[in-house]
Amino acid sequence: MCRWLAYSGSPVRLDDLLFKPKNSLVVQSQHSKMGATTVNGDGFGVGWYGALETPGIYRSTEPAWNDRNLRELSALASSRRVFAHIRASTGSAVQQTNCHPFRHGRWLWMHNGVLSGFPEMKRDLAFAVDPALFHEIEGSTDSEMLFFLALTFGLLTDAPTAVARAVGLVEETGRRHGIEHPVQMTVAASDGDTTWAFRYSSEGRSRSLFHSTDVSTLRAQYPDNPVLHDLSEDARLVVSEPLGDLHGAWREVPESSCLIVRGDQEEMRAFSPAAP
Amino acid sequence: MCRWLAYSGSPVRLDDLLFKPKNSLVVQSQHSKMGATTVNGDGFGVGWYGALETPGIYRSTEPAWNDRNLRELSALASSRRVFAHIRASTGSAVQQTNCHPFRHGRWLWMHNGVLSGFPEMKRDLAFAVDPALFHEIEGSTDSEMLFFLALTFGLLTDAPTAVARAVGLVEETGRRHGIEHPVQMTVAASDGDTTWAFRYSSEGRSRSLFHSTDVSTLRAQYPDNPVLHDLSEDARLVVSEPLGDLHGAWREVPESSCLIVRGDQEEMRAFSPAAP
Amino acid sequence: MCRWLAYSGSPVRLDDLLFKPKNSLVVQSQHSKMGATTVNGDGFGVGWYGALETPGIYRSTEPAWNDRNLRELSALASSRRVFAHIRASTGSAVQQTNCHPFRHGRWLWMHNGVLSGFPEMKRDLAFAVDPALFHEIEGSTDSEMLFFLALTFGLLTDAPTAVARAVGLVEETGRRHGIEHPVQMTVAASDGDTTWAFRYSSEGRSRSLFHSTDVSTLRAQYPDNPVLHDLSEDARLVVSEPLGDLHGAWREVPESSCLIVRGDQEEMRAFSPAAP
Amino acid sequence: MCRWLAYSGSPVRLDDLLFKPKNSLVVQSQHSKMGATTVNGDGFGVGWYGALETPGIYRSTEPAWNDRNLRELSALASSRRVFAHIRASTGSAVQQTNCHPFRHGRWLWMHNGVLSGFPEMKRDLAFAVDPALFHEIEGSTDSEMLFFLALTFGLLTDAPTAVARAVGLVEETGRRHGIEHPVQMTVAASDGDTTWAFRYSSEGRSRSLFHSTDVSTLRAQYPDNPVLHDLSEDARLVVSEPLGDLHGAWREVPESSCLIVRGDQEEMRAFSPAAP
Repeated sequence: MCRWLAYSGSPVRLDDLLFKPKNSLVVQSQHSKMGATTVNGDGFGVGWYGALETPGIYRSTEPAWNDRNLRELSALASSRRVFAHIRASTGSAVQQTNCHPFRHGRWLWMHNGVLSGFPEMKRDLAFAVDPALFHEIEGSTDSEMLFFLALTFGLLTDAPTAVARAVGLVEETGRRHGIEHPVQMTVAASDGDTTWAFRYSSEGRSRSLFHSTDVSTLRAQYPDNPVLHDLSEDARLVVSEPLGDLHGAWREVPESSCLIVRGDQEEMRAFSPAAP
Repeated sequence: MCRWLAYSGSPVRLDDLLFKPKNSLVVQSQHSKMGATTVNGDGFGVGWYGALETPGIYRSTEPAWNDRNLRELSALASSRRVFAHIRASTGSAVQQTNCHPFRHGRWLWMHNGVLSGFPEMKRDLAFAVDPALFHEIEGSTDSEMLFFLALTFGLLTDAPTAVARAVGLVEETGRRHGIEHPVQMTVAASDGDTTWAFRYSSEGRSRSLFHSTDVSTLRAQYPDNPVLHDLSEDARLVVSEPLGDLHGAWREVPESSCLIVRGDQEEMRAFSPAAP
Repeated sequence: MCRWLAYSGSPVRLDDLLFKPKNSLVVQSQHSKMGATTVNGDGFGVGWYGALETPGIYRSTEPAWNDRNLRELSALASSRRVFAHIRASTGSAVQQTNCHPFRHGRWLWMHNGVLSGFPEMKRDLAFAVDPALFHEIEGSTDSEMLFFLALTFGLLTDAPTAVARAVGLVEETGRRHGIEHPVQMTVAASDGDTTWAFRYSSEGRSRSLFHSTDVSTLRAQYPDNPVLHDLSEDARLVVSEPLGDLHGAWREVPESSCLIVRGDQEEMRAFSPAAP
Repeated sequence: MCRWLAYSGSPVRLDDLLFKPKNSLVVQSQHSKMGATTVNGDGFGVGWYGALETPGIYRSTEPAWNDRNLRELSALASSRRVFAHIRASTGSAVQQTNCHPFRHGRWLWMHNGVLSGFPEMKRDLAFAVDPALFHEIEGSTDSEMLFFLALTFGLLTDAPTAVARAVGLVEETGRRHGIEHPVQMTVAASDGDTTWAFRYSSEGRSRSLFHSTDVSTLRAQYPDNPVLHDLSEDARLVVSEPLGDLHGAWREVPESSCLIVRGDQEEMRAFSPAAP
């Protein structure tokens, strides 16, 4: 399994997100508190939107805690929208093309969880991917396959529906292969303007997912915390697990939900798989 | 493109094959004389048959000339049958799962060349792979796909026919996609007892391929060469380019041929694609 | 800190040592039970004596649990004497030249622990290394420096005295720099025939160290355990922490001791630093 | 040996420097035209000054032509002052700590060439380094040692004199060890405001070094070249070999010279070693 965070708001230095919090993602890479695995050392990745249409991605097979280039890069890069992910492989190879976030044009995608029985389902899922997209699949993970299925089902125009159909397809395929609970996921996707975060599992016991409460409330509670004062009103974080123990700072995303973050607007919707 | 060698005969230390010849494979990784590219620095791999049913493989994304572990390993490992490959990527990612040789059970496979138009053909080719084998595809190269097609068409029972049908399928698929010359290849395959080496290209201008002449002739010509005296009578090498300039040591494998090496027996057959 | 094992006895396949035990070194790389750190993911190394004078070493900056080449290599290599080490850096860079075991001619050396205040002491210690050996120092760790000091003080002819003098020099140097407890170590060294294992710390609270009891006793107690039956009478293991929970299989090496293993002979000596 | 470039001027995207020129540094990493080695595939590094006091460095052991992260990073980062270096090792390990540029506080340093007889001289040179700096030496190269000697002799206050004394020390040390031509170098150093470039060798046959002529002249000659129009008047490049074949764009730096670039001011001085 894995851990991830999705930030949007005023430009932040990447290292403020990745290294400085008490329970930062880099800390979690060695000692996750709420993850299915405590060690998430099978590579990592960061995606950030900058001056170009296409977001940049930096992905490495090293454990995040060891990567010196990540420290350098994240001290000099700032962004209004950052995806970061630390990986604990559920079996597929540790290689850059299996590191999250995955990218398609302006879109980023990352996943914590697993498609159970993926080896059995892989061929069926691969052939459900839009033929025009097929050759873009570079790695061998269930996570990237789920991304390409979502793209196939219209991620670019209606993200919640596309993910619902992708999940529906995986569940239907899983059932055909006798897999009881095919999907376990928290997923984040973004087009650079909006972030969609999904929490869902076939068995209804999904991996943890939290989002930050609004910054002004926190600021009032913690008048002395300088980090909070640097953030804009619309700053929002969605995370696998809280980055520290600021009480009231984090709210759990409910089971079977989709959280949509656009500017300072958050919308929580119910999420359920749809017929593909 | 790439360079490779396939050895069979009395046990040799791997470094005698990889490092010691004047134009060794490791030398070729920086300065190939006959390759389509002079630098073959996009990873490498070695496969060798030892005490186990399954051959071992050591594959790395570093240039072969830099890999200290390869020097260590190859000084201590000996084998009666060795495959070695240095890679120059034609576009797919530099990662271990894209390094040759590829393995399936007791079989090894390596390839120099390219399937032109592979991105366009990839989905069709993947669909033609035996569904029971599909999930074993770990990388993203044309070379591994060709291996899985050959496995699908019966590599384990009749290698020349299986490769002919695999090549036939790629050419047929290529034609459907408007690709003039889909296949460019020299390929080596082995089950641990026999080596099959193929030289073929759709355009009839295949990458170079050579095989060694028999050792006793060479020994008579070069009575003072100690390397030759350590080799058994049945020692045979098939190589992308000669490992040195011993005159009379190397014979070109003709265009559209399949060379079969079993013990000290060599058989040269014509090779042409077959209907899949 | 780190974890290590030193094996001597009848030839074993490396994977029998590294992967198969219940609490194998590779398991410990993610979840050490007794180490100063639970995760030992900052590279690893294996050294093994084979047909050559010089032992082979395979060292990698990847976490041991991820390294596919280690699985391949260790399934095909057997040895009568194996050193293996998983690293948790105490600050120096994660690079092959900082991975243990270190080698000098026929000798191997590995270390768990730390020289406290090493940055302050480094120049003085480096200056004390035999000038003829100085340029052989390739990495930047305290562990390698300790090895070169031991070499300087006669490791090749009298290992216990040489290590005592090396430790004595570090403590003396540390005191000059105001460091309270300069040395924390368990160390293993071998010349290919004998293994010396040291457990010592300036503060008298050394990292854990165990050695196996004799195999015939264990075999009598566990008549059904196949692993034990494959081992020769003289098989011995020295380990940072037990590889499993076979009661009676492991004995703690006492504080301030040197254990000498030669064939099936074990000798336990008191160890204390000596004037350099 | 190696190849490098040093840019100063209006902010440029790093990929405009590294990837887009016809004979870009990344092209040179596979096919250098004027280098002592054609392949410079033993790692690379980029240093760039951004919003922080300290410049960022991104260094990797992969060949520059393969590093996907370099493409990502260099498309999103811009800087007024960039150092970039591709490495061909002259023997020391391929590891990040041996990749250039090296950094000390606000300073960057990179080197093409070799200190001949470095293994013999290494201890003497190391002990000439300021004891307060000694522990900062992280790698094992002659290039980093030369940097620390220059720092020792006052690089921060008078760069040309400090480098002259460092070179003087190496030559004196080399003579003591019977080395005929100890120093072969082109070096670039910067404090973020000024760039110093040195071309010198003990034998008077130094590696190639060029600097760009002023942009306005070029712009007049090549009115249609868009790259030139994006650059400010004060844009300056110093390079191991020209990045393309724009006639009149490049001037050779003479033997035994120091070129000083500050804003649009260039000063060429004679350089000769000084007594340390």
